[in-house]
Amino acid sequence: MAKRTSAAGETAESMARRQRDISVSEFFLKNRHLLGFDSPRRALMTAVKEAVDNSLDACEEAGILPEIMVELEQTGDNRFRVTVADNGPGIVKAQIPKIFAKLLYGSKFHRLRMSRGQQGIGISAAGMYGQLTTGSATVIRSRTKGSAAAHQISVQIDTRQNKPTILSDVSVDWLPVFPSATADGKPGDPVSYKHGTSVAIEMEAAYVRGKLSVDEFLKQCAIVNPHLSLHYAVTLKKPAKGEAEGEAPSDSIRQSFHRAVKKLPPPAVEIMPHPHGVELGLLMQMLKDTESRTLRSALASDFSRISQQTALDICVAAKVDPKARPDKLGPGEIEAVYKTIQQTKLMRPPTDCLAPIGEEEILAGLKKEIDADFYTSVTRDPTVYRGNPFQIEVGMAYAKPQSDEELNNENPVRLLRFANRVPLLYMGGACAITKAMVGVNWKAYGLAQPKGSLPLGPVVVSVHMASVWVPFTSESKDAIANYPEIIQELTLALQECGRRLSINISRRKREAEAERKRGYIEKYIPHLATGLKDILSLPEKDKAKIESDLKKMLEKTHLEV
Amino acid sequence: MAKRTSAAGETAESMARRQRDISVSEFFLKNRHLLGFDSPRRALMTAVKEAVDNSLDACEEAGILPEIMVELEQTGDNRFRVTVADNGPGIVKAQIPKIFAKLLYGSKFHRLRMSRGQQGIGISAAGMYGQLTTGSATVIRSRTKGSAAAHQISVQIDTRQNKPTILSDVSVDWLPVFPSATADGKPGDPVSYKHGTSVAIEMEAAYVRGKLSVDEFLKQCAIVNPHLSLHYAVTLKKPAKGEAEGEAPSDSIRQSFHRAVKKLPPPAVEIMPHPHGVELGLLMQMLKDTESRTLRSALASDFSRISQQTALDICVAAKVDPKARPDKLGPGEIEAVYKTIQQTKLMRPPTDCLAPIGEEEILAGLKKEIDADFYTSVTRDPTVYRGNPFQIEVGMAYAKPQSDEELNNENPVRLLRFANRVPLLYMGGACAITKAMVGVNWKAYGLAQPKGSLPLGPVVVSVHMASVWVPFTSESKDAIANYPEIIQELTLALQECGRRLSINISRRKREAEAERKRGYIEKYIPHLATGLKDILSLPEKDKAKIESDLKKMLEKTHLEV
Repeated sequence: MAKRTSAAGETAESMARRQRDISVSEFFLKNRHLLGFDSPRRALMTAVKEAVDNSLDACEEAGILPEIMVELEQTGDNRFRVTVADNGPGIVKAQIPKIFAKLLYGSKFHRLRMSRGQQGIGISAAGMYGQLTTGSATVIRSRTKGSAAAHQISVQIDTRQNKPTILSDVSVDWLPVFPSATADGKPGDPVSYKHGTSVAIEMEAAYVRGKLSVDEFLKQCAIVNPHLSLHYAVTLKKPAKGEAEGEAPSDSIRQSFHRAVKKLPPPAVEIMPHPHGVELGLLMQMLKDTESRTLRSALASDFSRISQQTALDICVAAKVDPKARPDKLGPGEIEAVYKTIQQTKLMRPPTDCLAPIGEEEILAGLKKEIDADFYTSVTRDPTVYRGNPFQIEVGMAYAKPQSDEELNNENPVRLLRFANRVPLLYMGGACAITKAMVGVNWKAYGLAQPKGSLPLGPVVVSVHMASVWVPFTSESKDAIANYPEIIQELTLALQECGRRLSINISRRKREAEAERKRGYIEKYIPHLATGLKDILSLPEKDKAKIESDLKKMLEKTHLEV
Repeated sequence: MAKRTSAAGETAESMARRQRDISVSEFFLKNRHLLGFDSPRRALMTAVKEAVDNSLDACEEAGILPEIMVELEQTGDNRFRVTVADNGPGIVKAQIPKIFAKLLYGSKFHRLRMSRGQQGIGISAAGMYGQLTTGSATVIRSRTKGSAAAHQISVQIDTRQNKPTILSDVSVDWLPVFPSATADGKPGDPVSYKHGTSVAIEMEAAYVRGKLSVDEFLKQCAIVNPHLSLHYAVTLKKPAKGEAEGEAPSDSIRQSFHRAVKKLPPPAVEIMPHPHGVELGLLMQMLKDTESRTLRSALASDFSRISQQTALDICVAAKVDPKARPDKLGPGEIEAVYKTIQQTKLMRPPTDCLAPIGEEEILAGLKKEIDADFYTSVTRDPTVYRGNPFQIEVGMAYAKPQSDEELNNENPVRLLRFANRVPLLYMGGACAITKAMVGVNWKAYGLAQPKGSLPLGPVVVSVHMASVWVPFTSESKDAIANYPEIIQELTLALQECGRRLSINISRRKREAEAERKRGYIEKYIPHLATGLKDILSLPEKDKAKIESDLKKMLEKTHLEV
């Protein structure tokens, strides 16, 4: 590349000479904030998230109860090696380079089925970030279930061409051994598996504790994935930032989250696109690409909820020959079919493509997280945005304020956001979940709420969106886009929980009021008894009986408040 | 595609068979909200924006004063044909299909120089959206400067492969004739050019007026591009939404914005990357790709601000042979060079790659927009984020409240955001500009400001970021990412304008206070004069002289307040 300057005075010809392809890797390298790699701190969290998502998806697809190890090892002032290993089915050797060093490559993008990963970008992006900031390679080790040998491959990404460069490829003994931890954070028995995958990336990173940390991400992961066992180890060269001064520097952390249930979530089933979510241009494309030989059979086999009979009815109503070859239809004919489909009543899409967490599991998760005395949860029926089935779940926990001070010094409620069982930590302000929370009138349910803000109170709200395609606001998958259908479902679920909360809050207020009245009256019962005794000239011994009768009356009244 | 279901029980082998490439077109088709095509209303705005950006860039690069025509023609209940034509240098025929029907293709991505377009996505995305929603093709007509024939090409995008499909390609007479308008919106003389490009896309869209409309975008465009002449025409089948009831339905709009200056902005110069913004991995890549034969000459010729002498100094300090072949260096050697570069003092990047609007032009733009009695503007010196030069400009206009009611019933200030001379309308909440505005303590400058919100008052604030690479929060380019260096520069510029505003507000307050006092005293002057006359036993005729002397004293005092 020679030094060039360019000034006004270009021509169409001179401009044409500078037009060229931009590879998707180059694009995201320059725009790495879109992928969640804009700061060393967030980069660490994003890398762990992408690797853990992949491990969980792989284990569940193979029907294996997931056991995952996450290790953060400091290798320099602002450098870490991130290693994530799992007991999954392993990865076929030939696929490893592309899966870990090519953006937009994967198995999840082209199907309609709930999974954590969907784009085929994440883990390769983490490797690309490591390569950019440290010049290192991604090291993958994998042994497939039932195979004798394990392989270890080092790859980098050729960003000009968005394709993998293999640096080394050797056979190795599998059996990496993972540290585990006892309940009090001491080293436990080492853990090892017979098959699985581990990935290690060295990158510029910062380990910080708190709300946006790897610690918090993994903790929330364990909450929404009660079938997951997770071992977490951090080795620092010096104390982590945020460590209190004077405290003994903790140069290592060991923590194990053990699974609470031994059953995998029900497997999600892949579905065909629902006709009402397919736009005209996509219908044209699908009819061009179909393997079916007639329009009727294309409609019946490439879409969900269209039977052979419905397909025939659509063709007849659209005045298009049902036996016409789908790839030979004219634009007018396809538009007629499209309009007829829009006017045809069809069943909603099948929803076994979704695996919601479930009301009971949400309650169990909240109970692990917060010590409250009121819990509730709602799993709404599945519904559809732009043809994509989705489902909203909300859990809520309310801890009675312990003191007047606590009551008057209220903080915003704690909002936990999840999409397809993945915790969302960053970009809360841009998320449909936050927007729906702020949009609900929480004053009607007994919580204070500053205008345009989250409500206040000792409340934890946990919100989950399950979908075959979660519309994230950016490739880093941290916030859900504000589709009206999604906001509406979120609002309905939050309002339902709000109503239940409000009944609880009102009852508590009534109880507190009655308690206060009762306290007053109790104080006067002895005096009242003395008075009665004197007026009725009863013997001293009856005074005790009068007091106890009065107390009984009071208790009875109290119950009827 | 046959109906498939998949359940837990996958193996590494079965998973491998489903791994495949995802084309960047497929990716963005499914994620079109990332590109600004999530609603029919926003889609119309985004399409116009992308086409106008391209036209302006092309004209300026060719040194042509831009004249652009934007036409929105309703073709169905929720369909529009968007046509944008310019008097630019035209496009070489062979380049047209890729420029308009291939994502990630262009001339602006690989250079460091300020321009409106940067990604090579926008206009192809608009065409892809039109194709998806209406099945139509993008129609481009172009005649290059000095050529005899014009050509008209219809293209669609093959989303599976992210490449253009040419539907037709014919020679045509150029000379499209554009409607223009007189100052009162009546049809003016038709406009035509000898060369240029026009692009027409039919798409699902909604035309709505107001803050997030095409109208507003074009108006702001004219403000920040005073060298632009723009003709705008809308033809509706029925009245636009938001039209007041009872008003005569306006089935067409014609508006011309005429250029205020006949000079193009100074051309921006392309620069080489600044060494302090280059990360280790990128340095490795650059040394591998360089055309230079020695490390020393690679350093001197591929980076800005490294002279031959500095290059030699760096090699010596890093203990690496200056004559070493750059592509044969080991990772350790490159890391040593990298570390030495970080420790070497270098001049800041050259800043002629930026073309700021300028303080006077900002004032002129604000004066066109708002009738205020105080205006100010600041153009900060250029600085750098991650090696990329950028520059912040702020303009501010304050209209004195006309009544107490107006003063007490204050609205948030009106914030206009711009990046590389392009108005940003959507996603204000996610933008660094909004964040910096909210972060400044406006109470110190005399404006009310609710906690965590924009200040209140009859103020218009216009903020511009110019950069060789604007880090947008998504591909739709509506909001600037929150890099700390950018927030800091924005804050400093806003504070400078705030200080000036506060001086103006305080002076006004003092003046109002003095005015009030003077009113009081004036009321008592006649009584004072009568009193003095009586005490001093002066004749009646002297009373008038006393009154006028007292008034003179008062005025003098007032001036000294």
